[in-house]
Amino acid sequence: MNDSYLNFVNSPLGARVARSLGLPKPEVLRRYKADAPEFDGIVAVGAGPAPQLLDALADVIAHIGITSVAHPGAGLWVPLANRHGLMTGRFEATDPAAGVQARVWALVFDASGIDNSAQLATLYTFFHDTLRSLDKSGRIIVLGRPPEACASPRQWTAQRALEGIVRSLGKEARRGIAANLLYAAHGAESNLEATLRFFLSPRSAYVSGQAVRIGAAANALVADFDWTQPLAGQRAVVTGAARGIGAAIANVLAAQGAHVIGVDIPPPHGRARRHDAPDRRHGARARHRAPETPAQLATALDELGVDVLVHNAGITKDKTIAKMSEAAWRDVIDINLSAQERIDDALLEAGTLRDGGRIVAVSSISGIAGNLGQTNYAASKAGVIGRVQSMAPLLARRRITINAVAPGFIETQMTAKMPLALREAGRRMNSMSQGGQPADVAQTVAWLAHPGSSGVTGQIVRVCGQSLIGA
Amino acid sequence: MNDSYLNFVNSPLGARVARSLGLPKPEVLRRYKADAPEFDGIVAVGAGPAPQLLDALADVIAHIGITSVAHPGAGLWVPLANRHGLMTGRFEATDPAAGVQARVWALVFDASGIDNSAQLATLYTFFHDTLRSLDKSGRIIVLGRPPEACASPRQWTAQRALEGIVRSLGKEARRGIAANLLYAAHGAESNLEATLRFFLSPRSAYVSGQAVRIGAAANALVADFDWTQPLAGQRAVVTGAARGIGAAIANVLAAQGAHVIGVDIPPPHGRARRHDAPDRRHGARARHRAPETPAQLATALDELGVDVLVHNAGITKDKTIAKMSEAAWRDVIDINLSAQERIDDALLEAGTLRDGGRIVAVSSISGIAGNLGQTNYAASKAGVIGRVQSMAPLLARRRITINAVAPGFIETQMTAKMPLALREAGRRMNSMSQGGQPADVAQTVAWLAHPGSSGVTGQIVRVCGQSLIGA
Repeated sequence: MNDSYLNFVNSPLGARVARSLGLPKPEVLRRYKADAPEFDGIVAVGAGPAPQLLDALADVIAHIGITSVAHPGAGLWVPLANRHGLMTGRFEATDPAAGVQARVWALVFDASGIDNSAQLATLYTFFHDTLRSLDKSGRIIVLGRPPEACASPRQWTAQRALEGIVRSLGKEARRGIAANLLYAAHGAESNLEATLRFFLSPRSAYVSGQAVRIGAAANALVADFDWTQPLAGQRAVVTGAARGIGAAIANVLAAQGAHVIGVDIPPPHGRARRHDAPDRRHGARARHRAPETPAQLATALDELGVDVLVHNAGITKDKTIAKMSEAAWRDVIDINLSAQERIDDALLEAGTLRDGGRIVAVSSISGIAGNLGQTNYAASKAGVIGRVQSMAPLLARRRITINAVAPGFIETQMTAKMPLALREAGRRMNSMSQGGQPADVAQTVAWLAHPGSSGVTGQIVRVCGQSLIGA
Repeated sequence: MNDSYLNFVNSPLGARVARSLGLPKPEVLRRYKADAPEFDGIVAVGAGPAPQLLDALADVIAHIGITSVAHPGAGLWVPLANRHGLMTGRFEATDPAAGVQARVWALVFDASGIDNSAQLATLYTFFHDTLRSLDKSGRIIVLGRPPEACASPRQWTAQRALEGIVRSLGKEARRGIAANLLYAAHGAESNLEATLRFFLSPRSAYVSGQAVRIGAAANALVADFDWTQPLAGQRAVVTGAARGIGAAIANVLAAQGAHVIGVDIPPPHGRARRHDAPDRRHGARARHRAPETPAQLATALDELGVDVLVHNAGITKDKTIAKMSEAAWRDVIDINLSAQERIDDALLEAGTLRDGGRIVAVSSISGIAGNLGQTNYAASKAGVIGRVQSMAPLLARRRITINAVAPGFIETQMTAKMPLALREAGRRMNSMSQGGQPADVAQTVAWLAHPGSSGVTGQIVRVCGQSLIGA
C-alpha cells in the first residue's frame, strides 16, 4: 500500500541522497483530485500529411478550455483553432541555452493521414522538437487509423508502425509521462471526446504504452449527460467491491454519479451476496440480500435494471502446477472466469443489463504474459480476454460494450504481502518506476463505463505504467 | 557471441560454485545437430474432452518414429497409437520417493475439444501429473482451436485461456524447457506435420511462450519433398546475409537444400548488390552483380524465379528522439521497412516470387514492446508486423505465405557490443536465462519457409526464450 522508496526519494533529504548516489527517482504522478482543476497546461499539436482528426481534437480542446500551440508541421491547426475560438499559438522549440524552457502538459500528434512508411518522419520531427518541453507526468497521444481497416498494405504497415514509436516514446520519456496510441475508425470522429478527455486527464496517470481502438458505434453519443457526473442516474454493479481495486471502482463510479451495488461472487454452489457499496462520501446505505444463483441475482436486480456491470471479483491461489491442488485450480477458474460467464448470461437473458449498457471485466498482466506459479490465475485472466473479444461483436447488436482492464503492479493489500524483492521488481519494472494505485484502475474502468465511450468495445487496456512485462 | 556465465556454471567447478552460492544455472540448450538424431526421447500425450487432433498427432509421431506414453486422461491414445503401429504405453506418474524418475522429452496435450472454462481442469491434471517428468530442454505443446473461429463465446474464452496456461508453464518449467501453443483451424489437420516436427525438434530450442495459428491452406501439402532436404531445388533470397543472423539463415536454408542468393539492401537511392551466399559447407561460389533498383533485382533474379524470400537486412542507429538526427530516422525506416516493401512489390509484380512461395521478414521484440532509444528501429520493426498482417490475406490468393520472426536477445556481434549490464539483463530476462543463437532464428525461418508450412501465414513468431519483455 505504501511505496516507501518513492516517498523517500521525493523528500528533500531523499532527493539529495538519490542524486548523489545516482539512484532512480520515480516521479510522484499527478493524479485526478476532485478539488483541483482536471485540465490545465498547454497542449502542443502536431500532424502528419492530410490529418483527419484535428477538427475532432479542436472540439475537445474547446470544450475543456485549455490552450494549444501548433508545431510548424501542423500548419492547419492555427486557422482551425481560431475557428473554434481557441487560445492558440505556435510551438517554440526550446533553446536549452536560453535557460527558460517552455513547458507543455500534452503532445498530441494526428497521424491519421499517414499512408506510407516514409511519412513516419513527420512524427520524428514533431517529437524530436517537442519531447524535451513536455512536463513531468505529461501526456503523449498519437491519433491514427486502425491498421486492419486500412485500404492498402503500405498504409496498414505505416499505421501499425505507430505502435513501435509510441511504446518507445513511453520508455524513453520517463518522468511520469504516459504515451498512448488511439486508433480512431472512420466515422468515429464524433466518438472521441470521452476517450481524449480520459487520456488528456490526470485520471489516466498510470495508463501508458497502450493502443486503443475507437469504433464508429451506432449511437455515437448519449445526448444528455453531464461531463462532471456522466453516470448520474445510472445503476452500476461491481463484484468484489468490498476492498482493494473493487472498492476504488465503486467509489469512482459513485463519484461520477452512479448508484453502485456491490455483489460478492457466489462460490461454485453457494450464495451470492448483494449490498450497496459502502461509499461513505456518497452516503449510500448498505443493504444485504443473498440471492442463491446468478439467475436470482438477475431477478433481484431486475426491478430497476443495470447500466454498468463491473466484473472485478477475483482470487489467487498461487502454486507451481506440480504442487497445486485441484481445488485451487477449480476455485480460481470458477470465481475469476466462469462466474463472470454465468452472471452475464443471467443478466443478459433477463434483460437486466439494459441495451446501451457497459460491461467491464478485470483481467491482469498475468493473463497476457503468464506468470510463474499462476497457471490457474493466468488461465482465468487470459480467458477474460477471450470473453471480451468474443462477446463484443455479439453485444454490439444491443449497443452494449464489453472491455477489460489489465492491471499491472497495483499497490494493494495483496501486493503488500509479496516478498520484498518480488515487490520491488514489480514496482520498478515499468516506465513509471512505481506501482499504480487502485484509483488508477478505477478511473480506467470509469472511462470505459462512460456514456461517451460507446465506440470503445472489445478492448484490453493495461493499467500498468507500461510494465516491461508482456507477451 | 559468448555467454561466459553460461559456460562457467556448466563447467564442473562453476556448477559447484553456483550451487553453493545459490546462483541461477541456465541450462545448455539441446540444439539441432546434423550428426545427431533429431528426434529421440518419449512423448507423453494428454487430452481434454473430445480431442480432435490426436489422429494428426499419431501420424506425425509414427513418421518420426518415437515412443509415446498416454496419460490416463488420454484414453483414446492407446488404441489410436496401436492402429498407427506406434510404440506406446501408459504414463506412470513419477514417485519421487521411488528414486528413479521417468523422463520424457515432450508433453503434448490436445485441448481442441475444450469448449468451456470448467474443462480447462483437464490441462491442470495432465501437467500436474507430468511436468516433473519432463526432461531438461524438453517441450510442452498444447494443441487448440483458434479462438476467433470458435462457435460460442464460452468456447472462444476457454481456447483463449490456453494462452495463459502455456505462458505460465513456460515460466515455471525453466530448465531450458520450451512451451508453445498451436492453434489448428478446422481443416488444418493435414497441415500440422511441419509445424509439429519443428516444435518437437531441438531446432525450436529458443522458441517459447508463443501461440501460433495453422490454417487450412488451399494446397495442404506439396506432394513431393524430402523431410531431410525439404528445400531441395528451391531458390532462396536472403537480404543482409553477410553476417550474424542473416548468415545463419543462409546456412540453414542451404543445409535444407535451398540454393541461397544473398542480397545487400540498396540504400535509398543506391545500388543493390547480389551475391551467392558464402556458404562454404555447401560450396556455393560467390558471384556479384549490382542491380540499381529492386526492379532490376527482380529482373536479375527472374531468369529462374525465387521460392523463398527472407527480409533480414536491418540496421540500428540508436539515440533518444531528442538527440536523433533525421538521417538516422530515415535510414533505419528505409532499410528496415520501406526497402522490404519495394522489393516485395518488384518481385511480386514481375512474378519473380513464384506462386506457392514464402516470404519471411525479421521483426524484433523492440517492434512489439518498443525500446528506449529505438523509436526509429521499433517503428520499422512494428511496421514489419503490419506488413505481415496486411499482406497475408492478399498473398493467399497466390498461395504465398508471409510471416515474421521477432528475435529477442541473440548472441551476435551487435549484442556483444552492448554495455555489460544491459547485455546481462537482456540475456537473463527470459525463461531460458540466456541469449539465443543466430541458428535459433535461422531454424525458425526455415520452418516458416518449409513446403509443409503452407497453413502458417500472417504469424509473428518470437525467438526470444520467452523474454519477460513484451507489450
